[in-house]
Amino acid sequence: MKSRAAVALEAGKPLELVEIDVEGPKAGEVLVKMEATSVCHTDAFTLSGADPEGNFPAVLGHEGAGVVQEVGPGVSSVKPGDHVIPLYTAECGQCKFCLSGKTNLCGSVRATQGKGVMPDGTSRFSLDGKKLHHYMGTSTFSEYTVLPEVSLAVVSKEAPMDKICLLGCGVTTGIGAVMNTAKVEPGSTVAVFGMGAIGLAVIQGAVMAKASRIIAIDINPEKFALAKQFGATECVNPKDYADSIQQVIVELTDGGVDYSFECIGNVNVMRSALECCHKGWGESIIIGVAGAGEEIATRPFQLVTGRVWKGSAFGGVKGRTELPGYVDQYMKGKINIDDFITHNMPFEKINEAFDLLHAGESIRTVLHY
Amino acid sequence: MKSRAAVALEAGKPLELVEIDVEGPKAGEVLVKMEATSVCHTDAFTLSGADPEGNFPAVLGHEGAGVVQEVGPGVSSVKPGDHVIPLYTAECGQCKFCLSGKTNLCGSVRATQGKGVMPDGTSRFSLDGKKLHHYMGTSTFSEYTVLPEVSLAVVSKEAPMDKICLLGCGVTTGIGAVMNTAKVEPGSTVAVFGMGAIGLAVIQGAVMAKASRIIAIDINPEKFALAKQFGATECVNPKDYADSIQQVIVELTDGGVDYSFECIGNVNVMRSALECCHKGWGESIIIGVAGAGEEIATRPFQLVTGRVWKGSAFGGVKGRTELPGYVDQYMKGKINIDDFITHNMPFEKINEAFDLLHAGESIRTVLHY
Repeated sequence: MKSRAAVALEAGKPLELVEIDVEGPKAGEVLVKMEATSVCHTDAFTLSGADPEGNFPAVLGHEGAGVVQEVGPGVSSVKPGDHVIPLYTAECGQCKFCLSGKTNLCGSVRATQGKGVMPDGTSRFSLDGKKLHHYMGTSTFSEYTVLPEVSLAVVSKEAPMDKICLLGCGVTTGIGAVMNTAKVEPGSTVAVFGMGAIGLAVIQGAVMAKASRIIAIDINPEKFALAKQFGATECVNPKDYADSIQQVIVELTDGGVDYSFECIGNVNVMRSALECCHKGWGESIIIGVAGAGEEIATRPFQLVTGRVWKGSAFGGVKGRTELPGYVDQYMKGKINIDDFITHNMPFEKINEAFDLLHAGESIRTVLHY
Repeated sequence: MKSRAAVALEAGKPLELVEIDVEGPKAGEVLVKMEATSVCHTDAFTLSGADPEGNFPAVLGHEGAGVVQEVGPGVSSVKPGDHVIPLYTAECGQCKFCLSGKTNLCGSVRATQGKGVMPDGTSRFSLDGKKLHHYMGTSTFSEYTVLPEVSLAVVSKEAPMDKICLLGCGVTTGIGAVMNTAKVEPGSTVAVFGMGAIGLAVIQGAVMAKASRIIAIDINPEKFALAKQFGATECVNPKDYADSIQQVIVELTDGGVDYSFECIGNVNVMRSALECCHKGWGESIIIGVAGAGEEIATRPFQLVTGRVWKGSAFGGVKGRTELPGYVDQYMKGKINIDDFITHNMPFEKINEAFDLLHAGESIRTVLHY
């Protein structure tokens, strides 16, 4: 079938709005009509060419929501008409990872997903007869996309898809990192580095976890109004201080915070985030994705004296099991998604959405098909 | 009073066996007659001059056991005749750290301990009228030593002091890192880097925690017999492989170990220890003390994909609360201390004990006063 799509033909170029060919779902696969998608920094990172796993040409996009159109042989857990959120972190429920009880990472489709193909090693997308790569197992920048069954969370039909599409990445990642990875306790102090969508979602999670103090950190003070709206108790701009930001936070908090979150992808900030944690128990969670080959460093004394360095992918959330609940919480007003959406546009304006993201002018732009 | 002591007059020189002057205990302090002490790598590290916190001249030593002789004003929790193990990690029970329930680090005497003086800022030791520094709040290389009350664990009088002195550092550190810091579960896989006293104690802890697979790693294969005696299920010499040791361990264990422990103090090994952990849940615990200014590094992707980097000091053990139980477990045959003791000597041969440690010929030499 034909499908409107925004294709990344090569690194560093704008997406091309074209009509592509989409093959129907094979065994274990599902055809989904996307209703809404948004643009995340990870899409921009891959499009820039800096992502070592980036494949071109490709259909990017991983934050979306849509409706199941058709299922391939053997698919039993979703059916046509289901409302779904694509999952770049699958959940098969059967692999070593899913059965471990210790992680949301799933091994079922990881190898092929990283190569930009479906689990059988082939692609369902083509343009003028030339194969296009899939992306993160989701490819939400095509109106019709094909995903593995294990990469879909079935959610309430009541929920507006142009809102809950944000649960496909940023909002869930931030809240989940607080709840699942850090397990922030009531009364804790929290520092959040980077006030993009993830950082704001971490603030929201910290409020839900009843943190007593939530310090928002960004070098762009224009982000602070929204940070406070989400619940930051104070905002700090590292550029206002001669001392390192870790020293500033340690002094502000009488020894450091209980939990810190890096939501940028900057390895130097990752070090600051660790070192602003309290001796004896402070935990730092890396959420941001660093550039290829970049490394984090610190003195081991930081860890020997009790700090813990962790990371989080998709907020430690098992998508098929937990996302329906996130959607329900949104519907009950317990999770705020609406305030992340600074812009709405028709799908065809997707390159403008990238421009707004790069300029730091948007938190999330929702694109409507 | 006069006391036999081995004094570190300057960095890089052997200890001087001399008679020093020891002042009686002031408020909150306790005079202890040491019965036995042993030599740990940390003493050798400080004596070498590489320790940035090292003060000279000083009375070193931190693994010991002795008998309380006299208490200063206000001391209520120990009394003359009590058998005690000196604690370089104090436990006051009242500071922010002790009350956190999250760490065994204690802030009560830390600042002065690091400077080589008693909590009132002065020293109880002198040689020919010249002040000597204390060390780690313990200074077990003097027959008579003065410690803060909070730096003493009172233990059973039945226990042989020339054995339980090892619970003052190495044995407790290794077992505690398994039990308190990593909380190794039955059936876990464990990799232990470095077969000194700490590494062997980690193996013992892993056996106590019912780990299913305990991989001992050392570049000196002569250590492997003892490693197996303590319970290692396999031994790996990185020199036998062309691949990095983390690759070797990942292959051996189908994806990596559940827990790893660095018991050397080598920042490159710390990286290997992290990276040999299983994606999704593997935790690496740094126990070894690195040289001044040295840093650990890795790609943040290692953490984002679920590995956790931690450290452990004194095995996360709260000395006054937990050490009496460790002594009882030794008396019941549940903790093996005897096999760590490869040499026994009179105190006067202390420089020989250092030589044996440097040559890798001893695990622990116990010195008898």
